[in-house]
Amino acid sequence: MKAQMTDLLFHEVGLRDGLQMEALTVPTDQKLRWLRMLMHSGVDIIQVGSFVHPARVPQMADTDRLFAALGESGEKPANVTLSALVLNEKGLERGLACGVEMFCLGVSASETHSRKNTGMGVGEATERIIAIAGEAGAAGKRVQVSVQSAFGCGYEGKVPQERVLAIVRRYLDAGLNNISLADTAGHAVPDQVERMFSAIMAFDGDVDMACHFHNTYGLGLVNAYAALKAGVGSFESSVAGLGGCPFTKIAGGNVCTEDLVHMFGTMGFRRDVKLDQIVGVAEEMANFFGRDLPGTVYRTGTPAEAKI
Amino acid sequence: MKAQMTDLLFHEVGLRDGLQMEALTVPTDQKLRWLRMLMHSGVDIIQVGSFVHPARVPQMADTDRLFAALGESGEKPANVTLSALVLNEKGLERGLACGVEMFCLGVSASETHSRKNTGMGVGEATERIIAIAGEAGAAGKRVQVSVQSAFGCGYEGKVPQERVLAIVRRYLDAGLNNISLADTAGHAVPDQVERMFSAIMAFDGDVDMACHFHNTYGLGLVNAYAALKAGVGSFESSVAGLGGCPFTKIAGGNVCTEDLVHMFGTMGFRRDVKLDQIVGVAEEMANFFGRDLPGTVYRTGTPAEAKI
Repeated sequence: MKAQMTDLLFHEVGLRDGLQMEALTVPTDQKLRWLRMLMHSGVDIIQVGSFVHPARVPQMADTDRLFAALGESGEKPANVTLSALVLNEKGLERGLACGVEMFCLGVSASETHSRKNTGMGVGEATERIIAIAGEAGAAGKRVQVSVQSAFGCGYEGKVPQERVLAIVRRYLDAGLNNISLADTAGHAVPDQVERMFSAIMAFDGDVDMACHFHNTYGLGLVNAYAALKAGVGSFESSVAGLGGCPFTKIAGGNVCTEDLVHMFGTMGFRRDVKLDQIVGVAEEMANFFGRDLPGTVYRTGTPAEAKI
Repeated sequence: MKAQMTDLLFHEVGLRDGLQMEALTVPTDQKLRWLRMLMHSGVDIIQVGSFVHPARVPQMADTDRLFAALGESGEKPANVTLSALVLNEKGLERGLACGVEMFCLGVSASETHSRKNTGMGVGEATERIIAIAGEAGAAGKRVQVSVQSAFGCGYEGKVPQERVLAIVRRYLDAGLNNISLADTAGHAVPDQVERMFSAIMAFDGDVDMACHFHNTYGLGLVNAYAALKAGVGSFESSVAGLGGCPFTKIAGGNVCTEDLVHMFGTMGFRRDVKLDQIVGVAEEMANFFGRDLPGTVYRTGTPAEAKI
């Protein structure tokens, strides 16, 4: 394993990817409360929101205000980075104006998915994302670029590994070496995850790899484990496993933060992260939405301190 | 990996370990319907029930009748083995009388758990189980011996690996080489699983290893994946992930059969197993108990044929 006991990063994306499918709008003050709890839980990066048109995703309408509020108060611990998902130049502009510290940008490896999301094919979208990432980097910000639908596509089915690796190579050629592979459709399976990340490691051992899994078929944690084995050091997840589609019966959202923290903790990784505090956020979220959320540990209860 | 694409075994234990905690008694005819569906799904071994006093576990009162009904009808496919859990000499006697094909017996690695369950310490219980297993083998039956609480104990917490390995060695010395490790309390974590089974492989490469995980902290599938990597060839699981305690909020029961079959199928293992049919049983069970059960695939829906 490339990862050392101390250098795994937890990137909490529940406030963005977790909430964006929820019909019930979370008030800004409620989000701020959860963000504050998460900022003191020991997770490393917190995705506050995305910059999209409010008419398209109303839940993300207050992203600028959230950044401004946290920035003005000066309450953010120095070891926590606040990230945002940015889709285009307008998003970069908004993000730079409100104090985003880390810009996350991506392109889909699926031609159909790319055209539906951006109106552009994969090649064109990649060059555009690289240009925006370059501007964010030039402004002194941290940048993470991703390949979406890296393990399969809801429209196209299988996505050839070579197509994903070609985008990764293009990122690396452009000097972008913080790279996330996102299993947007929840199709990833563990041996595929190991093969894919091992292939990236094989052509650049210094790349900082991140992963983003969905739990559609219950494989989120297995895929995260496989990613760890293949050298991935940054793990995107959502508190309580938020992020499933509440309008369908599909249970699985994002891989669940507290379940992931528990798993890695039992393996000796990042014992500094305060599992109880993340569980506290999950409990508040379940209460807010008035339903059981997918996470397991928050329902089972935190294991005895002796165990983790 | 020791396992080949074709030789993984699925051991369905839902009708035993899955049901024994359920307060709502499942009528014998309903069990027979589910058993018949499972017998034609491609799983290899089906645990029909256990032999315990009906006053202690009423749900298991009809185990003898289930075996008799399936035996008399001659409907069982030749490639399916019907197993039962046996706790003592009386159980062996009942099992031999009603046609059990495979006897599963076990001892706990936890002194406290052993004494609570059997009134005997680990050493005495081991010798007794070995004697019963020997009788079952002498009667021409398949035998699987297990170590319960092999990865941790609800009473004692951590269980030293050496204590588990000592029982395994005693089994091997007695000529019993089909050995299951059971995570009775749901405490197992994947690197521990790899270490434990690798240690067994290291002192006998020919042992047939089986595993039995609970999903208490959401790690059932991860542990099964880790077990596969370490050379385990037989996987115990419950349809729909049954087996959690319905009286508490603990979500996780046994590792879920259809989720496991899906995971291994995507890796190329045992593509002959009919996922749809197992999902069909899970749906009927959810309907029977009138609540969502823990399994993910039965709720998400079977992946497109192209995927698995």
